[in-house]
Amino acid sequence: MTWAPIPSGSPFSMANLPFGVVRYGGSDGPRPMVVVRIGDHVLDLAAAGIEPALTERATLNALMTSGRGAAIRARAGEVLEGPERVDWLRPVADAEVLLPVAVGDYVDFYSSLDHATNLGRILRPHDEPLLPNWRQLPVGYHGRAGTVAVSGTPVIRPDGLVAGADGVGRLEPTAALDFELEVGFLVGGPRASRIAPDSADRHVFGAVLLNDWSARDIQAFEYQPLGPNLAKSFMTTISPWVVTMDALRPFLVESSLQEPTPDPYLRMERPWGLDLSLQVDLNGQTVTTTNFDRMYWTFAQQLAHTTINGATTGAGDLFGSGTVSGPTSDERGSMIELTWRGAHPLTLADGSTRSFLHDRDTVTMRGFFGEKAGGRNERVGFGDLIGTVAASDVVAHSTSGKAGRAALSR
Amino acid sequence: MTWAPIPSGSPFSMANLPFGVVRYGGSDGPRPMVVVRIGDHVLDLAAAGIEPALTERATLNALMTSGRGAAIRARAGEVLEGPERVDWLRPVADAEVLLPVAVGDYVDFYSSLDHATNLGRILRPHDEPLLPNWRQLPVGYHGRAGTVAVSGTPVIRPDGLVAGADGVGRLEPTAALDFELEVGFLVGGPRASRIAPDSADRHVFGAVLLNDWSARDIQAFEYQPLGPNLAKSFMTTISPWVVTMDALRPFLVESSLQEPTPDPYLRMERPWGLDLSLQVDLNGQTVTTTNFDRMYWTFAQQLAHTTINGATTGAGDLFGSGTVSGPTSDERGSMIELTWRGAHPLTLADGSTRSFLHDRDTVTMRGFFGEKAGGRNERVGFGDLIGTVAASDVVAHSTSGKAGRAALSR
Repeated sequence: MTWAPIPSGSPFSMANLPFGVVRYGGSDGPRPMVVVRIGDHVLDLAAAGIEPALTERATLNALMTSGRGAAIRARAGEVLEGPERVDWLRPVADAEVLLPVAVGDYVDFYSSLDHATNLGRILRPHDEPLLPNWRQLPVGYHGRAGTVAVSGTPVIRPDGLVAGADGVGRLEPTAALDFELEVGFLVGGPRASRIAPDSADRHVFGAVLLNDWSARDIQAFEYQPLGPNLAKSFMTTISPWVVTMDALRPFLVESSLQEPTPDPYLRMERPWGLDLSLQVDLNGQTVTTTNFDRMYWTFAQQLAHTTINGATTGAGDLFGSGTVSGPTSDERGSMIELTWRGAHPLTLADGSTRSFLHDRDTVTMRGFFGEKAGGRNERVGFGDLIGTVAASDVVAHSTSGKAGRAALSR
Repeated sequence: MTWAPIPSGSPFSMANLPFGVVRYGGSDGPRPMVVVRIGDHVLDLAAAGIEPALTERATLNALMTSGRGAAIRARAGEVLEGPERVDWLRPVADAEVLLPVAVGDYVDFYSSLDHATNLGRILRPHDEPLLPNWRQLPVGYHGRAGTVAVSGTPVIRPDGLVAGADGVGRLEPTAALDFELEVGFLVGGPRASRIAPDSADRHVFGAVLLNDWSARDIQAFEYQPLGPNLAKSFMTTISPWVVTMDALRPFLVESSLQEPTPDPYLRMERPWGLDLSLQVDLNGQTVTTTNFDRMYWTFAQQLAHTTINGATTGAGDLFGSGTVSGPTSDERGSMIELTWRGAHPLTLADGSTRSFLHDRDTVTMRGFFGEKAGGRNERVGFGDLIGTVAASDVVAHSTSGKAGRAALSR
């Protein structure tokens, strides 16, 4: 039993104790610090004397590199069950909650069979929806690490070249801004390569929710032959509380049957699926409800694949699961799937419709572990991942040549 | 006139003064330090009292962020023309020359018209060689920053899934290991977005040679629809001496005519081509000689494109030009072009032939500025970018299931 207050239903129970980075007192106040979240508060690890060399930091990277995460989390749990020290707790509501990690390399995958099938049907309706490599390896690409941002950061509608009917690309704010519901996994420990799937838990520090914001029209024009670039590089948001491998381990379940059996370097003996219920709200209205346990390729396989060529991975590297979609129409993790690229717009409670996201729309993602199996007294989840769309910040668009774009850096 | 000795023909003249990071005395000896190269020596900036807060560092990142690079380089030039201080010079031959920068985001482009045309003809012989977007935007993708390594690092032949005649991918060491001759540009200064092409020199710190090692068979199987991943993520090597924007500015020349005229955000008023003679040697034999001035998309446009969607770029970010090829058959910047994917193997001086790289092959790249315009008394160049191929380090390949791969991490 902890002396810390935990509101009923909070995903930040004693079974969770995720890490994050916060700052109090504004940008001129105290420095950022590594904390553990409990209920609606954070435990000030440095005040509690817990490894200040790793916790008086602006990011989790040093802690993630050190291999001390499990010990620090365990110590935080002991403090929260020991003599009451309310002076070590601070309300999260008073904190500026920061991006928890300086992201090294960010690789994004495409590992939901239902999502990949939906996209194939939408984009290539007359062909096999899955390309020949899809069931043989976890398809993925590198994304932009420097634009990974924390929940709450405004999502400024990106500009890019969009093809007109004449095939000519013109610079426009995207008219097809989308979300993608994903889970992100963060690597910890020393740099490693050729990681076997069944030792993934030695190399994964923890998980966050991830929204892979996407501009479908920019993507359609740019992506051949080297993959998406500006369609996704403008921003990726993650939830601020890193749920550790120790916290999510009880929710590992058998993953989907893989047919054909993958190459030996991708085979698993242990269960690497996750019972993780996921939900997306658009302006407060739930539009997607699904579960992560049906993902085809597991995070363990994604990590093995990323490193089988000798590439190293190290603390701070982030990899995204790919959009999580399920087999039914209300389990689709993106607008392009939910509206079938605008063929069937969503109708919201206020009567307005959406093919893609409008300015001022708010997308909220949530995830709770173990609910499918009946839930537990002590809930474990990520909390909210929130993003609100802002208008393109380019003041004026001009085709007259130089100086037409007021926001252009000089 | 400098008192420092400069061998005749050295690319490290007083007109160059590139930055690098070296370490003396082995890994237990003194810490890495930022230096300026002159001839066959380095100037110890900290010993000379030049901004030790920025030069007593293991990477150039702090210096690149600070905006003090030009001032520090100018001060180094004054020291080298002032009273003789041979105690501040150390032979580069005694140094361990390190990776000069902790790379943030690495974006690799595809900006040579001749290279893209050659690849199109090789890979899609019955179609238009260039895809519709190619002349409208600089096509690029994000590469793996964490595996950028310095010249001299062994290039271990990567494993990956290679498709058999049955369409099934099997894990094998690549049989199609290739080099790609590129120039890499490093960003400096504070994070910025929407950079206009004509202000690129305010945001680019300097340039290096870059070898984008590629596994063509792995790439062919994996790259649809999200682009190359394991085919390139195993390693990218760069030359250790960062030629600053001030040093390369005299060699800016008009770039190729662009037809059609690109969208306004990509238009340039200033010359952003580079008179840079490039050469590739394979086992000491020159196989490619070309010049960077024929690149279609300039580094200024690449930087503008990367940031037009609102994405930020900051100190330590690296972007690659894409393979540099010219219009003639001896100006091809990769083996796949030189041998037309093995149809016309190269014959080396020892009588052996190459379709792609063999183990123990050494690839050496060199680049000198301004030679096409007749050269100068004071040469400016990158020095050598060297890589030697090592055998795949996986001890045994097995399809029998677990534990077949001795080098697999546990």
